[in-house]
Amino acid sequence: MDKGITQYEAGESVDCFLMIRSAVKSTAVNGNPYLTLMLQDTSGEIEAKLWDAKDETVKMYAPQTIVKVAGEIQNYRGRMQLKLRQIRPASPQDGMDAGDFVETAPLSQEEMADIITQFIFEMKNPHIQRITRFLLKKYHHEFLEYPAATKNHHEFVSGLAYHVVSMLQLAKSIADLYPTLDRDLLYAGVILHDLGKVTELSGPIATTYTAEGNLIGHISIMVNEIGQTAKELGIEGEEVMVLQHIVLSHHGKAEWGSPKPPMIKEAEMLHYIDNLDAKMNMLDRALERTKPGEFTERIFPLDNRSFYKPHFSK
Amino acid sequence: MDKGITQYEAGESVDCFLMIRSAVKSTAVNGNPYLTLMLQDTSGEIEAKLWDAKDETVKMYAPQTIVKVAGEIQNYRGRMQLKLRQIRPASPQDGMDAGDFVETAPLSQEEMADIITQFIFEMKNPHIQRITRFLLKKYHHEFLEYPAATKNHHEFVSGLAYHVVSMLQLAKSIADLYPTLDRDLLYAGVILHDLGKVTELSGPIATTYTAEGNLIGHISIMVNEIGQTAKELGIEGEEVMVLQHIVLSHHGKAEWGSPKPPMIKEAEMLHYIDNLDAKMNMLDRALERTKPGEFTERIFPLDNRSFYKPHFSK
Amino acid sequence: MDKGITQYEAGESVDCFLMIRSAVKSTAVNGNPYLTLMLQDTSGEIEAKLWDAKDETVKMYAPQTIVKVAGEIQNYRGRMQLKLRQIRPASPQDGMDAGDFVETAPLSQEEMADIITQFIFEMKNPHIQRITRFLLKKYHHEFLEYPAATKNHHEFVSGLAYHVVSMLQLAKSIADLYPTLDRDLLYAGVILHDLGKVTELSGPIATTYTAEGNLIGHISIMVNEIGQTAKELGIEGEEVMVLQHIVLSHHGKAEWGSPKPPMIKEAEMLHYIDNLDAKMNMLDRALERTKPGEFTERIFPLDNRSFYKPHFSK
Amino acid sequence: MDKGITQYEAGESVDCFLMIRSAVKSTAVNGNPYLTLMLQDTSGEIEAKLWDAKDETVKMYAPQTIVKVAGEIQNYRGRMQLKLRQIRPASPQDGMDAGDFVETAPLSQEEMADIITQFIFEMKNPHIQRITRFLLKKYHHEFLEYPAATKNHHEFVSGLAYHVVSMLQLAKSIADLYPTLDRDLLYAGVILHDLGKVTELSGPIATTYTAEGNLIGHISIMVNEIGQTAKELGIEGEEVMVLQHIVLSHHGKAEWGSPKPPMIKEAEMLHYIDNLDAKMNMLDRALERTKPGEFTERIFPLDNRSFYKPHFSK
Amino acid sequence: MDKGITQYEAGESVDCFLMIRSAVKSTAVNGNPYLTLMLQDTSGEIEAKLWDAKDETVKMYAPQTIVKVAGEIQNYRGRMQLKLRQIRPASPQDGMDAGDFVETAPLSQEEMADIITQFIFEMKNPHIQRITRFLLKKYHHEFLEYPAATKNHHEFVSGLAYHVVSMLQLAKSIADLYPTLDRDLLYAGVILHDLGKVTELSGPIATTYTAEGNLIGHISIMVNEIGQTAKELGIEGEEVMVLQHIVLSHHGKAEWGSPKPPMIKEAEMLHYIDNLDAKMNMLDRALERTKPGEFTERIFPLDNRSFYKPHFSK
Amino acid sequence: MDKGITQYEAGESVDCFLMIRSAVKSTAVNGNPYLTLMLQDTSGEIEAKLWDAKDETVKMYAPQTIVKVAGEIQNYRGRMQLKLRQIRPASPQDGMDAGDFVETAPLSQEEMADIITQFIFEMKNPHIQRITRFLLKKYHHEFLEYPAATKNHHEFVSGLAYHVVSMLQLAKSIADLYPTLDRDLLYAGVILHDLGKVTELSGPIATTYTAEGNLIGHISIMVNEIGQTAKELGIEGEEVMVLQHIVLSHHGKAEWGSPKPPMIKEAEMLHYIDNLDAKMNMLDRALERTKPGEFTERIFPLDNRSFYKPHFSK
Repeated sequence: MDKGITQYEAGESVDCFLMIRSAVKSTAVNGNPYLTLMLQDTSGEIEAKLWDAKDETVKMYAPQTIVKVAGEIQNYRGRMQLKLRQIRPASPQDGMDAGDFVETAPLSQEEMADIITQFIFEMKNPHIQRITRFLLKKYHHEFLEYPAATKNHHEFVSGLAYHVVSMLQLAKSIADLYPTLDRDLLYAGVILHDLGKVTELSGPIATTYTAEGNLIGHISIMVNEIGQTAKELGIEGEEVMVLQHIVLSHHGKAEWGSPKPPMIKEAEMLHYIDNLDAKMNMLDRALERTKPGEFTERIFPLDNRSFYKPHFSK
Repeated sequence: MDKGITQYEAGESVDCFLMIRSAVKSTAVNGNPYLTLMLQDTSGEIEAKLWDAKDETVKMYAPQTIVKVAGEIQNYRGRMQLKLRQIRPASPQDGMDAGDFVETAPLSQEEMADIITQFIFEMKNPHIQRITRFLLKKYHHEFLEYPAATKNHHEFVSGLAYHVVSMLQLAKSIADLYPTLDRDLLYAGVILHDLGKVTELSGPIATTYTAEGNLIGHISIMVNEIGQTAKELGIEGEEVMVLQHIVLSHHGKAEWGSPKPPMIKEAEMLHYIDNLDAKMNMLDRALERTKPGEFTERIFPLDNRSFYKPHFSK
Repeated sequence: MDKGITQYEAGESVDCFLMIRSAVKSTAVNGNPYLTLMLQDTSGEIEAKLWDAKDETVKMYAPQTIVKVAGEIQNYRGRMQLKLRQIRPASPQDGMDAGDFVETAPLSQEEMADIITQFIFEMKNPHIQRITRFLLKKYHHEFLEYPAATKNHHEFVSGLAYHVVSMLQLAKSIADLYPTLDRDLLYAGVILHDLGKVTELSGPIATTYTAEGNLIGHISIMVNEIGQTAKELGIEGEEVMVLQHIVLSHHGKAEWGSPKPPMIKEAEMLHYIDNLDAKMNMLDRALERTKPGEFTERIFPLDNRSFYKPHFSK
Repeated sequence: MDKGITQYEAGESVDCFLMIRSAVKSTAVNGNPYLTLMLQDTSGEIEAKLWDAKDETVKMYAPQTIVKVAGEIQNYRGRMQLKLRQIRPASPQDGMDAGDFVETAPLSQEEMADIITQFIFEMKNPHIQRITRFLLKKYHHEFLEYPAATKNHHEFVSGLAYHVVSMLQLAKSIADLYPTLDRDLLYAGVILHDLGKVTELSGPIATTYTAEGNLIGHISIMVNEIGQTAKELGIEGEEVMVLQHIVLSHHGKAEWGSPKPPMIKEAEMLHYIDNLDAKMNMLDRALERTKPGEFTERIFPLDNRSFYKPHFSK
Repeated sequence: MDKGITQYEAGESVDCFLMIRSAVKSTAVNGNPYLTLMLQDTSGEIEAKLWDAKDETVKMYAPQTIVKVAGEIQNYRGRMQLKLRQIRPASPQDGMDAGDFVETAPLSQEEMADIITQFIFEMKNPHIQRITRFLLKKYHHEFLEYPAATKNHHEFVSGLAYHVVSMLQLAKSIADLYPTLDRDLLYAGVILHDLGKVTELSGPIATTYTAEGNLIGHISIMVNEIGQTAKELGIEGEEVMVLQHIVLSHHGKAEWGSPKPPMIKEAEMLHYIDNLDAKMNMLDRALERTKPGEFTERIFPLDNRSFYKPHFSK
Repeated sequence: MDKGITQYEAGESVDCFLMIRSAVKSTAVNGNPYLTLMLQDTSGEIEAKLWDAKDETVKMYAPQTIVKVAGEIQNYRGRMQLKLRQIRPASPQDGMDAGDFVETAPLSQEEMADIITQFIFEMKNPHIQRITRFLLKKYHHEFLEYPAATKNHHEFVSGLAYHVVSMLQLAKSIADLYPTLDRDLLYAGVILHDLGKVTELSGPIATTYTAEGNLIGHISIMVNEIGQTAKELGIEGEEVMVLQHIVLSHHGKAEWGSPKPPMIKEAEMLHYIDNLDAKMNMLDRALERTKPGEFTERIFPLDNRSFYKPHFSK
């Protein structure tokens, strides 16, 4: 795809394939039903109205359908919309593949699996190593596919694994500079800290929260998993409690969802590494869409701040 | 014991048996070592200084030793102290028993066990009943002996079980008035909510926090136990998640240590019942020591408030 | 009324009587005026647009008019709307009564008056009894008709008295379990705590705040009333101050509108009983409209939480 | 009194009359009782230990006794103490008067009464004028004698009236600059805002809180008084509610004890005038004791800040 | 202009000149572009839709164009709108002047400059006087033209100077009542405190924040200017640091943008004077538009409160 | 020095040289003056009482005097004290050097200067490079000697430079992993962010705050310096504003003393790098003094948390 759907300016014409992310039927003020479609490619998404919402239409344009569209880009209250002139579902002859419309991590699942395996391989503490390896293996498939969140940061296919890979590299650099850190604990904490999200979230695409995600949360889910894994593997010793604590405390404060704050040095560092990587990801994505000399949109999880891109920025 | 040690006024003479709760060696400004003893009976405790702290003295007056003391009560900066004239360890002939010096719940362990068993017996949902019964049985001994906390409320031997019994009776009254409540869930929540304290705390006397208590906390400990119990008993179904949620959320807010707030009606009610019983316990204990027309000491966990006892109070 | 207006699904046809709760004239984007009607029966309310807002139309469809409507239910941005096909005011022949369209407490005014009178009758402290009886008598009519609030909980005709009756029963159960509580104080506190709302609010239907309600508030209004009642009845003694304190402090914290926090045991309990009953009322109403396995809408006064209804709920 | 007791430096000798503000009996580490005396003159107070606390001694040196002392000033942990060499109660021949040892406002009671009377005389709204005059007359004696607080600001004899006089002059200046302000309301608000303190506080000397002060507070006390006064004088009309609101809201925020925030322009201004005058009083008192180029002690009610006195200050 | 555009009621006809404050092109739900105009005169502003947004139309109705309009006032969701019947740009023959459509301070620039010059002239400390005079001269033109803010208070042409003039008069009154205040410091603080706004804001009309305003802020900008001015004028001595502190701290608290809280008496007073004048300005403007017996709109910077205008208000 | 003064256990004898850090004269309860000495070597400090405080004694044992002491270590209320048996000032023959008793950074000033120079040398943006080099040169001497704070972290001689060196290495690692970061900005931010401390603090030893430190603060001091440097060097362009912003915002939030939050990506990262290095320093120092299986003392700037050292820690 030469030019992503989010790179068009108002007034330009569009003629391309897109995937339906969501489709909501509503009723206009005049009583007629219509469909609001969110259409996406790997560059992001755009809204379009379909002024017809008969039952067969609704069925034809269900989420995850690939469509051929033609129309014009318009600015509606500050956000871009696609005014549809034509729309049809892609046919097999169009040779389209869902994977081509979904944003995904810049590394392949294999590359990421290799990097993480290498980190586990280097662990010296057998208890920590065995628990980490067991849990990663148990959720291997989901871990490599899920996003790290429904929005805000790393909210793309394989975002969870990609976030972990970045954090591992950051953890390694920091452990090189501060040699009193226990590398095994730090790496295990990075790998396990968000693994409960494979239960908390519904899946890699059109991601929402499961009931268990809402009522228990990924932190407690993974703390439980560590306890059960240790039992299954017959592992006893302080490492179990320490790993549970590191996962439990990684949000840093009670108000942010950690029932205990970090009380082990590596837990405190994990909290920092997690934040630093998540924020770099959010900032890079927001600044990509901003011209030098201008401010980004407000970024909600960064205290709703706008960031400035200096004129002399590369 | 006719008159408790905390019921003496300044100036009165004392001649009685007490138990040493703690003994701390310090050095006076002039360089001489001495012992600060906390001496207790079932009415409470009093401080005394022992102006000698030779090694054999320190050994002789270790915590949990029963001693015969004589001396005078004095007011030191607003708190009562016992100025010792004589002290000696009790001998076997004195016929003293440690249990006579320790505050304990007003119901016997058997009475409390019977009441709780009856509540479990009445449960209709077999999953909830089996998990509750299993965990209570697993920690039966500790549950009936531990306090509910190291301080603030129900901080006496068997305080945990007594708190649960009061809460069950309150839960029953409330369920009678609001028939949409699920009694099984509510009773199970009451019985399990603080059971993790038998791991969080060190024991029934001179209670402190264990490392696991500090790093994981009684809430997460019990959530894990419920998960493992369900696995062991082969129980599947939403009841497991719901019970975990009820325990997880019973502190009511993230800031108070619950990683998720109550999101099930019975969880919200459990939080209220827990608070109401704990506060009645604190208020009754503080007001017992206060004369009509006066204010209690400040009560820290009640937002550091003082409470007034009206003249017309019974 | 067999099926309430809020029980229809999108797509269903409607043909029934409803009462106009409010009617607001607006101008569409194209410059034409129209009416937005809120139509209610005892099950709740629904919005409808009337594409005509001539002066005579506006007069004909004023609030509290009963109308006959026919049309179709539609989902507009997640909320149900009634698309009107026909509308006309009810005529005398239709035999409709305003009372049939207004939600009201599940007990009759007489039943509630009887219960409350019985509680006052049982009071032993004559000062407390006389002040309570005097004030209840003074506002007898309004007390039995007013809602407990303009929204959130017990926001229906006679909601105030119904809230008081529930709280009295809860207070009785709690006093049975904790015998140190002064029943007279607790019952008087329950009966008087929100009585100032008959001055704070405008009336039983289409309720808003009066200027005095905004500037002084129901708490201070009732504290003043207690003082003046005592003066009128020639009552002196600490009971007056204590009753004033209990009303003054029943919101629990300065931030929530109580200039003094509870500093008397019964005041602390009143705050709990008030909260517990209000929350049960909100939860029951929200869960009634929720299917097992789903979450309620967010409930603003419950910290904006959604509540889950387990599959195994009755 | 040439040189006040707080103006001595460590090492200087003292030989003068002082008044006992408080006397507390304690027991030293070695078991001997002693008295801690707070001794005052109009410049402030100093602590002294009396190494004898026999019953007759305690009686002889009760609070509000005037004593002749001789001794030396010493610095004890950063605060001045008086090391007593000699002490005796003043005899009638010494010709001492309690009033000479108590700090008092810089204006006489008569001067202050005259100024305030003049402000009331200038009021044009008869309702506001009559209520204000009635209440001032009712508490005339206490109003002119009480302090404005137990500590922090205007905590001296007649401090309440002096605070009101300063505020009235400030209110007049501000009303001259902002002519839309209603002078009658503003002046009445200034005069009545703290008048409830004559019930809240115990008296002009050694001031503490009364039970009514603790449980109801000066704000609600005065709101009630205004209501009863209006009733007694047969005054009806919005002025009553508005005066009540102005008193009710003068602490500015719920957290600071006002159940309603200011919602009338003059109420908002009263809050500012009150704060401004109180802070000037605190700052002047703290800076008087500070040398140019240095910082004051921390001032608790000013957010615990220290203030700098520039070298070029007058 | 006899009757301001904000003084019309819904239903009235309008035929007058207005100035375009802003013009935003949007797309209607049906895909057609249109212009949303904000039209202003000195009484305030009103919204109007122009159902045509061709390129030449957009150019013709750019911001700051004066237009002749005819149409009708309508109430759209509680706010007034102008439904245009006719619109055309004013021609030279119409003899309109942009200055006639812009709200401006009630004093002329010359009057304000004279008053401020007089205050500077009266300063006795030459360091303070020279720095203040230099900076005022440097930004003389902008200072007399800029608003004090983009919204909330004194958001009109010359609002900054008018705010300073009011504050100087208030400062003088207060210094008359509290003679320990250093007038030079207080006056210099008033004059300089917001002078950085001439760099922070974009200009007197259609005011926005500059990049420097966003990234550095008017407080730090002016602190820097004071430092550089002192260097340029060769002034040394504590006055420089003290002036910097007074400007630095005038928002009162870290949360409100002052990196240091006031720690000099005159700094504390400046904070109060600034607030008091800003709030009087906001209250007067809101109450002007409110009838006796009613509440104003919510005023966001006054904690979002509504204010009541008593019936007996002048 | 074989064994540091903080490494002794209670009961051990001491015979060594120490430096007096502070000496405070006080008066005992019995009226006798004495000296409280804080004595230090590079391992930390210990308190000792000198029961004699004649004028010549006080002069002889002034701060920064090196003394020979003999005595015994005692535990006084949980903290170690040195009970002196003998003390004398060191004589020239003892050959002691003040530098041997003061904690200092683990790298020499030359090593640190070299590392920082290399980072400046690598900068590509000439504006950023020149401003950074100029300011570092201007304060070269103080920068290499000052601590980074009076307490909490890097509170030793050369602590400021050592903190900067660690942060530079961390910044480099992070920039390697996140290539969109502007290295010049990040390095300049690290070097300049705390440089204002050489004006804020009094010096490298016995460090306190200067008046300018209290009233203006190191952040605003350095923002001003950057502005004046740019003027002196004739540098214009956005780099000046951006560097000022990065220093201005490095505390991260208004509540923490930054008048503007980070609004440039490198400013956000600087805040993280600063925190991470400061916390590692605090944690390492606290955990050094803690045995495996135990908790550290509470660390105030880490939210007053205690940290656990696992048994399996290296």
